[in-house]
Amino acid sequence: MKNSIGTSVILTLAGESHGSEICAVLDGLAPGIPVDEAFLAAQLARRRPAGVTDTARREADAYRIVSGVREGHTTGAPLCILIPNADVRSADYEALQELARPSHADWAASAKYGGFEDRSGGGHFSGRITVGIVAAGAIALSALKAKGIAIGTHILRCAGVEDRPFAALPADIETLAGAAFPVLDEAAATEMTQAIAAARAEGDSVGGVLQTAVCGFPAGVGEPWFGSVEGILSNALFSLGGVKGVEFGDGFAIAGMKGSEANDAFGLKDGRVVTLSNHSGGVNGGISNGMPILFNTAVKPTPSISKPQQSVNLRTGEIQTLEIKGRHDPAIVRRICPVVDALVAIVLCDLLALRFGTDYLKP
Amino acid sequence: MKNSIGTSVILTLAGESHGSEICAVLDGLAPGIPVDEAFLAAQLARRRPAGVTDTARREADAYRIVSGVREGHTTGAPLCILIPNADVRSADYEALQELARPSHADWAASAKYGGFEDRSGGGHFSGRITVGIVAAGAIALSALKAKGIAIGTHILRCAGVEDRPFAALPADIETLAGAAFPVLDEAAATEMTQAIAAARAEGDSVGGVLQTAVCGFPAGVGEPWFGSVEGILSNALFSLGGVKGVEFGDGFAIAGMKGSEANDAFGLKDGRVVTLSNHSGGVNGGISNGMPILFNTAVKPTPSISKPQQSVNLRTGEIQTLEIKGRHDPAIVRRICPVVDALVAIVLCDLLALRFGTDYLKP
Amino acid sequence: MKNSIGTSVILTLAGESHGSEICAVLDGLAPGIPVDEAFLAAQLARRRPAGVTDTARREADAYRIVSGVREGHTTGAPLCILIPNADVRSADYEALQELARPSHADWAASAKYGGFEDRSGGGHFSGRITVGIVAAGAIALSALKAKGIAIGTHILRCAGVEDRPFAALPADIETLAGAAFPVLDEAAATEMTQAIAAARAEGDSVGGVLQTAVCGFPAGVGEPWFGSVEGILSNALFSLGGVKGVEFGDGFAIAGMKGSEANDAFGLKDGRVVTLSNHSGGVNGGISNGMPILFNTAVKPTPSISKPQQSVNLRTGEIQTLEIKGRHDPAIVRRICPVVDALVAIVLCDLLALRFGTDYLKP
Amino acid sequence: MKNSIGTSVILTLAGESHGSEICAVLDGLAPGIPVDEAFLAAQLARRRPAGVTDTARREADAYRIVSGVREGHTTGAPLCILIPNADVRSADYEALQELARPSHADWAASAKYGGFEDRSGGGHFSGRITVGIVAAGAIALSALKAKGIAIGTHILRCAGVEDRPFAALPADIETLAGAAFPVLDEAAATEMTQAIAAARAEGDSVGGVLQTAVCGFPAGVGEPWFGSVEGILSNALFSLGGVKGVEFGDGFAIAGMKGSEANDAFGLKDGRVVTLSNHSGGVNGGISNGMPILFNTAVKPTPSISKPQQSVNLRTGEIQTLEIKGRHDPAIVRRICPVVDALVAIVLCDLLALRFGTDYLKP
Repeated sequence: MKNSIGTSVILTLAGESHGSEICAVLDGLAPGIPVDEAFLAAQLARRRPAGVTDTARREADAYRIVSGVREGHTTGAPLCILIPNADVRSADYEALQELARPSHADWAASAKYGGFEDRSGGGHFSGRITVGIVAAGAIALSALKAKGIAIGTHILRCAGVEDRPFAALPADIETLAGAAFPVLDEAAATEMTQAIAAARAEGDSVGGVLQTAVCGFPAGVGEPWFGSVEGILSNALFSLGGVKGVEFGDGFAIAGMKGSEANDAFGLKDGRVVTLSNHSGGVNGGISNGMPILFNTAVKPTPSISKPQQSVNLRTGEIQTLEIKGRHDPAIVRRICPVVDALVAIVLCDLLALRFGTDYLKP
Repeated sequence: MKNSIGTSVILTLAGESHGSEICAVLDGLAPGIPVDEAFLAAQLARRRPAGVTDTARREADAYRIVSGVREGHTTGAPLCILIPNADVRSADYEALQELARPSHADWAASAKYGGFEDRSGGGHFSGRITVGIVAAGAIALSALKAKGIAIGTHILRCAGVEDRPFAALPADIETLAGAAFPVLDEAAATEMTQAIAAARAEGDSVGGVLQTAVCGFPAGVGEPWFGSVEGILSNALFSLGGVKGVEFGDGFAIAGMKGSEANDAFGLKDGRVVTLSNHSGGVNGGISNGMPILFNTAVKPTPSISKPQQSVNLRTGEIQTLEIKGRHDPAIVRRICPVVDALVAIVLCDLLALRFGTDYLKP
Repeated sequence: MKNSIGTSVILTLAGESHGSEICAVLDGLAPGIPVDEAFLAAQLARRRPAGVTDTARREADAYRIVSGVREGHTTGAPLCILIPNADVRSADYEALQELARPSHADWAASAKYGGFEDRSGGGHFSGRITVGIVAAGAIALSALKAKGIAIGTHILRCAGVEDRPFAALPADIETLAGAAFPVLDEAAATEMTQAIAAARAEGDSVGGVLQTAVCGFPAGVGEPWFGSVEGILSNALFSLGGVKGVEFGDGFAIAGMKGSEANDAFGLKDGRVVTLSNHSGGVNGGISNGMPILFNTAVKPTPSISKPQQSVNLRTGEIQTLEIKGRHDPAIVRRICPVVDALVAIVLCDLLALRFGTDYLKP
Repeated sequence: MKNSIGTSVILTLAGESHGSEICAVLDGLAPGIPVDEAFLAAQLARRRPAGVTDTARREADAYRIVSGVREGHTTGAPLCILIPNADVRSADYEALQELARPSHADWAASAKYGGFEDRSGGGHFSGRITVGIVAAGAIALSALKAKGIAIGTHILRCAGVEDRPFAALPADIETLAGAAFPVLDEAAATEMTQAIAAARAEGDSVGGVLQTAVCGFPAGVGEPWFGSVEGILSNALFSLGGVKGVEFGDGFAIAGMKGSEANDAFGLKDGRVVTLSNHSGGVNGGISNGMPILFNTAVKPTPSISKPQQSVNLRTGEIQTLEIKGRHDPAIVRRICPVVDALVAIVLCDLLALRFGTDYLKP
């Protein structure tokens, strides 16, 4: 599907880091969904660089919704959202456009596009494109919230600092709403910020692990074999350049358990069937079981560092030393949280529309 | 896509654990690919239960290729492969068909299908269906091998025992070819087998982590944003019921590194651009970079254990105690390796056909 | 999508004219739909050759439903239906397998598959494969009928003989149910049969135009621009080798009208909004309007004729004279009617599932 | 696929008649294709209203390519093209927005979107959206032309006037290039223009039949059963609101022929296998045979007429008389020709990319 994802609710992305606008088209959303522009702006703000942990690039994100909305509600036609790129300094990049940045997409993209690709600021591979995901996802998040479905992501681990895992759901998700630095334990925020600033000071970068929870999602959604909730979500998450791992429930840890430890026994709560534990992360056989959907996402350290690195000149094929000078994020773990929330919301809207019809999210 | 996966090369699965046959339709494979029936049979044998680590169910896997092959070569028309189910003992299951087995798909499936689903032996959610993946995948594996692309999966970790990770590629993949118990370190095989047998003796089960390598895959394959090599592969892997995590390259470990540790610097080898390390697992920005594609898959312990468990009666909604008596695998890590190889081969054939055309794998 | 069609309800076809079985996999149908085997057998009988208008090949169509059905109802898992091929006489074809039959797929298939294709009896391009469509479609037709949606196709025109067009709907559809020679005017049946027999006697063949009506289909289904009811249906209809034209409502005739003649004014009937005419064939802007969906399908004369024809030898590239000796249909207009009904039913089940959810057709 | 079409080359449309911009995203086009802006502007001009046969609305079509192009060539990343809407007079429509216009999408759209749809000027169903198809298609047409593939559409029949059918191909296509009123016989242009003007004078409208030819398209492209060249093209053509019929080769006329008349015998021309006639329109069994692809498209009279019509009030459900006052086309046959060319070009780029790989159109 290339730059589109979804079957009934479909997101399409276009744009480059240093182009005039990023474009997101969100098709298939139910008609009648209120578009909460304050929430949309707030989500964009959460993704925006700010403070010592992020790039110095400043973006206004003065988005425009060009279609699909009338009198504050979705019409059912595709939404086209445009977000202008501002504060673009291509000059920073010009010098290094011939050199492939290690662990960036430059080299792989060159093999694919034969040198015609736009390399400026990472071009179409830049994290800047995620602004379109956040904008479109804000509307999906609102629609889900109105149905009692809440999504939240926090930084579980970063630069050796641990946040506490989700414990009280859905209250913990509420805590994260609008958080500039999304952690559950405030002390972790301070420590992580310091560790990120220290990495920046060294001209280095750090990664981290995110934990996401989805509460209120109905049981019986997803498909065997190749439309599993886990598979669909993981495909979406791996679209984000820095993501190198996805695990549901206890994930890699469950591989070390015994069946008697890992199985989620059944019980009743308020007359409703529940599982007494949630090692499975809310999904069995690819289908939601009504418990919170829980997953972790591994984010690698941002590959743009200012330390010298051995690189290849894409024009000449020579090995050369690269020193990156531009403005970069020493860590994207903070800014990627609203992106994950947005992407997950869009994907879940799609699964719900497939299961219950295109009007399911219509108020 | 429900029970189908792929865009240009498409696998469709049908069948149930206790039905007459499993059916796999593989569409879009290039014409002229030799069908190596001995290799196909060998791959089925690798997946077949055998010895103390597996279920006592005995399956002959007397497959038939009903279409798409003429005089030993693919015709370009869809291959329909049928594998009869043998040694079915539904009686083992009848008693427990009203009780949802913890961490199986029973409860989620009931929420989805409203009680019309076939529960016998896990029905359409049974691992038995993977026999269709292995059969179809054997032809894909052969086609890739003829193009110099090798795929191998071994048990990296199981029940506290570690195998050595891939070190010498592609030689290590050769080592695994046809292995009944796929590990790189023979001593690990013995220890793992003992640990699995011990779990069985306790009426319990164990899981593990698989490591897969793909060598010889060309650079420049895969799509930004939503057709990434990582996303497409992870979606396929999560189709397997027991899989709870997928990580590429250093995966979750890379999240704890600094950029200067995690980045793969460039170098030259035999005049070809390579990376000097492979923390990224052969994929950048969703696109293959020509290095080996490396990923790990977390497999949970098999949920069928004979210890008593608290369950829910799907008919009455009552909480009851379940004791499973049937024949089950105390671990699927051994049998799932050829399934992973097969699934990965099919998915990569699809990516190659999309990139280079439908005749790319034609000899 | 190659040999699969649909998004939420998906049909996949495999098999060849002279292979052992034809395979149809129907995925995504709601659980709980009764499988009326008598109706299924009757639909297969309607498609079966019989009498002077058809090929002398005799097929028993002893189908087997291998998966997806339990205790007479769909389970929600994919249905795999196998129909054995009987009375195969490949010897009839062997002589001519090197010669491309004019207006058959032979030459085009050879350009596509490079000679690896199975040519025996038309291979995967044979009309024999439609037996899978009819079998799968019978279940879709039953499901739609239970929702008050009726589908009927008759031969509007064949060999210069005209049937009367649909006038009293849905009663006319009832008339066609189970008809061996589906026309609304019995006299037309006799005349058409004679004309077809006459063509056969000359070693020639005839074509015709089919008219199809769908009654009871709800308004508001279909998508603007690329998921239109007309586009989706036409894509399905053109899959049938002999189809060369599809028109909705007044179709090509409407192109010669004025707007004031062609427009369907609105009125009320039993308190419900209706159109007073139906020149549009039940679809506006690609979306159903609640009126009967009406379309015509042009079927070319069967290309297998016994008159000598100038052909090309696919092996040598030489121009040679071809004289076809096998058993062939002098017209397929009769046998194709249940195929159209079946295909339309499957496609409409898909559109309904997308619009109203996967349980919409669950009783 | 809703507002997207294609598998490897994908067009997505968004926008409304009276919104700020129309948006077309074209994804999957090979890198390195020159973007001929003069040709793009010329194609937009061909679609633009002009003279007595069209609406009085004046549009500048000051398009912007926001992404996917660098230094005049495609980069391989998605092209986002924005075309501003100008000269919008919503006031013309406000009065009638409660009344469903007969044979427009208003009523069906209301059934689908429940009143949330944008009705102004037809909203997302307006022919205005086709400006995005023409802009994106211009680049596809250039890419095909560079490979020797030419596409042309003319008005075969309009208001009782006949143009001559394609006879000398590809020369006839050359004749049509850039034609303001695309016919092969100049006299037909004058007569058709007069007939359209006469219909306008009566407050009425007319339709017509278009004929399209594609020359130079390679043999062996397309898929059995559900990816046929005919099915894929017809699905695209029926996306256009006014299209009510599509026929390939001799289409509905072939249904009245005998096999001996309809079959295309084989011959040799310059050492290449050809068919001596082309009743099949260049496609057999869904697969291109190397001959020109020929098809006709039936276009209904534009439903916006100024004569009084019986309508339904979408708010109250009452039957009322509608008199349309806005500016409308008395015929769209002229303006739709470049839209058909564009849409066909995009679809054929997709089929070629699927068959021969994503770099096939790379110069």
